[in-house]
Amino acid sequence: MDVKIDMISKIVPREISPSSDVPSSYLVTCDLQYLEYVELDVLLAPNACDIFSDRIRHNAEGFAKVGGDSIRLSRDTLPPIQTVRDGVAGAYQGRSWFLPQDRYSHVKRGNFATVEHNHLKFFRDLLGENRVLANSSDCQAYNVDWIRSVRGYSQCVLKPKTAQEVSEILAFCDKHRLAVCPQGGNTGLVGGSVAVFDEIIVNTALMNKILSIDEISGVLVCEAGCVLETLEDQLAEKDLMMPLDLGAKGSCHIGGNISTNAGGLRLLRYGNLHGSVLGLEAVKANGEIMDLLSTLKKDNTGFHLKHLFIGSEGTLGIVTKVAIQCPPKPKALNVSFLGLQSFENVLETFKLARKELGEILSSFELIDALSLDVVTGYHGLKSPITDYPFYVLVETQGSNVAHDEDKMNKFLEMAMKTGVVEDGTVTNEDSKMKAIWALRERITDGLLYDGYVFKYDLSLPIKQFYGIVTEFRERIGKDAVRICGYGHVGDGNIHLNISVKEFTQDILKRIEPFVYEHTSQLRGSVSAEHGIGFRKPKYMHYSKTESAINLMKDIKRIMDPNGILNPYKVLP
Amino acid sequence: MDVKIDMISKIVPREISPSSDVPSSYLVTCDLQYLEYVELDVLLAPNACDIFSDRIRHNAEGFAKVGGDSIRLSRDTLPPIQTVRDGVAGAYQGRSWFLPQDRYSHVKRGNFATVEHNHLKFFRDLLGENRVLANSSDCQAYNVDWIRSVRGYSQCVLKPKTAQEVSEILAFCDKHRLAVCPQGGNTGLVGGSVAVFDEIIVNTALMNKILSIDEISGVLVCEAGCVLETLEDQLAEKDLMMPLDLGAKGSCHIGGNISTNAGGLRLLRYGNLHGSVLGLEAVKANGEIMDLLSTLKKDNTGFHLKHLFIGSEGTLGIVTKVAIQCPPKPKALNVSFLGLQSFENVLETFKLARKELGEILSSFELIDALSLDVVTGYHGLKSPITDYPFYVLVETQGSNVAHDEDKMNKFLEMAMKTGVVEDGTVTNEDSKMKAIWALRERITDGLLYDGYVFKYDLSLPIKQFYGIVTEFRERIGKDAVRICGYGHVGDGNIHLNISVKEFTQDILKRIEPFVYEHTSQLRGSVSAEHGIGFRKPKYMHYSKTESAINLMKDIKRIMDPNGILNPYKVLP
Repeated sequence: MDVKIDMISKIVPREISPSSDVPSSYLVTCDLQYLEYVELDVLLAPNACDIFSDRIRHNAEGFAKVGGDSIRLSRDTLPPIQTVRDGVAGAYQGRSWFLPQDRYSHVKRGNFATVEHNHLKFFRDLLGENRVLANSSDCQAYNVDWIRSVRGYSQCVLKPKTAQEVSEILAFCDKHRLAVCPQGGNTGLVGGSVAVFDEIIVNTALMNKILSIDEISGVLVCEAGCVLETLEDQLAEKDLMMPLDLGAKGSCHIGGNISTNAGGLRLLRYGNLHGSVLGLEAVKANGEIMDLLSTLKKDNTGFHLKHLFIGSEGTLGIVTKVAIQCPPKPKALNVSFLGLQSFENVLETFKLARKELGEILSSFELIDALSLDVVTGYHGLKSPITDYPFYVLVETQGSNVAHDEDKMNKFLEMAMKTGVVEDGTVTNEDSKMKAIWALRERITDGLLYDGYVFKYDLSLPIKQFYGIVTEFRERIGKDAVRICGYGHVGDGNIHLNISVKEFTQDILKRIEPFVYEHTSQLRGSVSAEHGIGFRKPKYMHYSKTESAINLMKDIKRIMDPNGILNPYKVLP
Repeated sequence: MDVKIDMISKIVPREISPSSDVPSSYLVTCDLQYLEYVELDVLLAPNACDIFSDRIRHNAEGFAKVGGDSIRLSRDTLPPIQTVRDGVAGAYQGRSWFLPQDRYSHVKRGNFATVEHNHLKFFRDLLGENRVLANSSDCQAYNVDWIRSVRGYSQCVLKPKTAQEVSEILAFCDKHRLAVCPQGGNTGLVGGSVAVFDEIIVNTALMNKILSIDEISGVLVCEAGCVLETLEDQLAEKDLMMPLDLGAKGSCHIGGNISTNAGGLRLLRYGNLHGSVLGLEAVKANGEIMDLLSTLKKDNTGFHLKHLFIGSEGTLGIVTKVAIQCPPKPKALNVSFLGLQSFENVLETFKLARKELGEILSSFELIDALSLDVVTGYHGLKSPITDYPFYVLVETQGSNVAHDEDKMNKFLEMAMKTGVVEDGTVTNEDSKMKAIWALRERITDGLLYDGYVFKYDLSLPIKQFYGIVTEFRERIGKDAVRICGYGHVGDGNIHLNISVKEFTQDILKRIEPFVYEHTSQLRGSVSAEHGIGFRKPKYMHYSKTESAINLMKDIKRIMDPNGILNPYKVLP
């Protein structure tokens, strides 16, 4: 069976047979959808092929087979790759024929009720006909995550417009033991925002009003279904910006960003959502509306409950409104690209950057020689600097063009004078900045020309940031085509890549579980920013102790005693 | 009965009768202790006198009487006031004769066990003789908060050195139903860190090791009993600083800062502790050690539990270790002082400051005319600018002296050109900056010359920031000596002051509960940064909904089912 891809620009399967879970033929046409992160890949294996993202690597073998046939793709049909700001949007196609019960056979449906006519009647009375989707084809798009890693078979999608409606829905579901899957823009990478079985999907798309933008304090208050890019556009008119930026910004909802504690491209500079979210409103499983929608910077009256809803991926409540502290829009941008002789020098340079660039440092990205080799080799990009074992990309964002340029120049001067940096270039020209960023962003898609790539997205203490690459070079050696590392030094977030000619169980066993154990021993994180969702609960113990997981379960129990909210997700 | 004060420089009562709760005479000599906040006042009432802080204003009448006698102080014995960085360290003296059961008679001792010999034996076996204090005079200092607002009668103070010891203590106490009061530097202002009755005090003073300072990432890891100033000093050697700064930094423990979500002077610039604390270790009531001591910026593996311990004031666990992201130490400081015609112009100026000063803006403080009048009148300070209804103090902290000066000048130029600011002065000379800060810092202690001052520390939405002052001018009018407002515009935190010649119930009734209701209606906070502790649970409902309070109680129940941790505190 062949799968053809005409065009990639957004993930909209044009034709998937609605009548069967395992259709016999496909013509899938996709449009490009930006990823919020670099880790989605297109991989072309030597013979039969897989197209899959790093996120679903563990199921790669499964993906290669459909109903006993291999999906075949020639090199010619390899989909085009389009670079994005901080990564590569990869291509994949309608994998929706893999129902979770096939791939995740260990997961059993919970003891929940099944949606019946009287339930639908209640929802229609509450929301009207148009905001209750209850036939298979209408529900289809809501049942599949956009990387097609999980597909449920929900027969009921609800689109509330207010927290009050969400409240009545949840109270009803709780009473009738109906499982619920909260869903925002459905851009997550761990299957957290789609049904696993037949959960009722509560989609926030129609809760999309901006309630206020305070130009003076910089506080934005809006409903959870607002699309991140829409907020960014509205704020820009007032010289403000969102404190977070993601590749998925054109689709993702702010409520989902908060529920997943989305990281993104501005974290080094503007911090995480636990710092910038001033308040929120969320509905608990029993329908209770938790009004925590403070717009205050200081409020020490009792436990700080809002944080329970930030990053718990919809398992403790559905976020319905948010208040966010927005920084002023920067007026100046500078990018430099540096060559260094050792990882120790990279660290010294980072220290110097923190000191000299101080408040304007916005990115500090590492690229090792074998990573740069990917983009100069396969993509034919030109690097302004060559022949170093390490390269660093430094970006500044500030409020004054001349000052920022001056700071950057002084930083470079000192870095070169002390010898930690041997060569470097700097620019504030838009095209040149983009060209430098491409050296970082296109590594991911270039790597796939090596063969099969084992990819890991890890947070590690900064001193041990690169050690894991060296470690694997010792462990795997020449059995790999390439073992390289690149990533956000500033955030301690490395992308470890081990490419081989062909996937083998033997290589996998030499990598896992060692990579997780090693990360765990260094107190690192096995999921830096994508969360746990449906696909990673079994890895949580590598980054969280049993006590912590037990406390999470205790909290789940009191906030959602019937377990109706996003079951099968997050908690192991 | 007279109370004499020889010297104020630290709060160490030299002589308080150890044998009686109501001694008949006093000679109290104090050393100055910096406050972490402006709100502690010395008040000289016209006849009999009170010396009290705003924090205990509600009990002011009680303080005026000791055993039927008024405490008398002539103007001459009014203690000297010493200004501190962001406020005034006030004086007070041995009020330890007011046991909580006198002043807080509505609070009843919980059904806890009483410390017995076999309990003490267990503690001595665990910690040794020296780290178990068990006689009245040894325990005395630990039983009283430093503003003498609450005094317990604990007969057992424990000084563990490790989390393991804390764990064994709590497991034992939980098993034997012994109530526990966690205590850090005991610098809180709401009575949260002292025993109310006979709770066992677990003091963190000996858990004071700095475990690591990573110069590259700026991550500090240390034990909970480290004094903030010690950390600041150690970090300074590595060109780093703590992301928070408090007046109480010479005494307060970082564990207490985190447990109370301390705000302080750098919040506008460096954000709150929910953003800068990367991880922590805490011991639950049952002795379970929660290892959440991540040093990572990105870790989305499950619920973000650390936030439960930030700001819950020791009621959910005892923080034993912390990991904090520390910013680089600034190299440049600038201060300007501006005159403005309206509060609207203040807001416009704040907006302009956010835009032009951007990343280097570190303080934006409002002083209204009647507030400035206090320091120029009573204290004889000279203001560089006069005859405006509103004044603003703007401070910058940055990494480049010339750039910051340039930005500040450009900001001032634009502010004057558009007319929002009518007059202004700017300086980076240390003595001049201090002189300008004194205009802001000395308002609090100057106000007491008016008579009796009703003081409120509120967070309000920025647009309604000053409205409450106008509101009270209409409500109280000429019955007050002065109704003024000043505070942190940048953080939405105003200090409302209503001074009268003499305290009367009538005036009180015209102020309260209106001031709380008004704050509540505007979704403000009735405790901006000091927390709830022992003294404010009854006000929590003005800033938190019933649902939120119920969820707090649910969480308390699962994390401390026997309620042994800091009873009588926080939860209403």
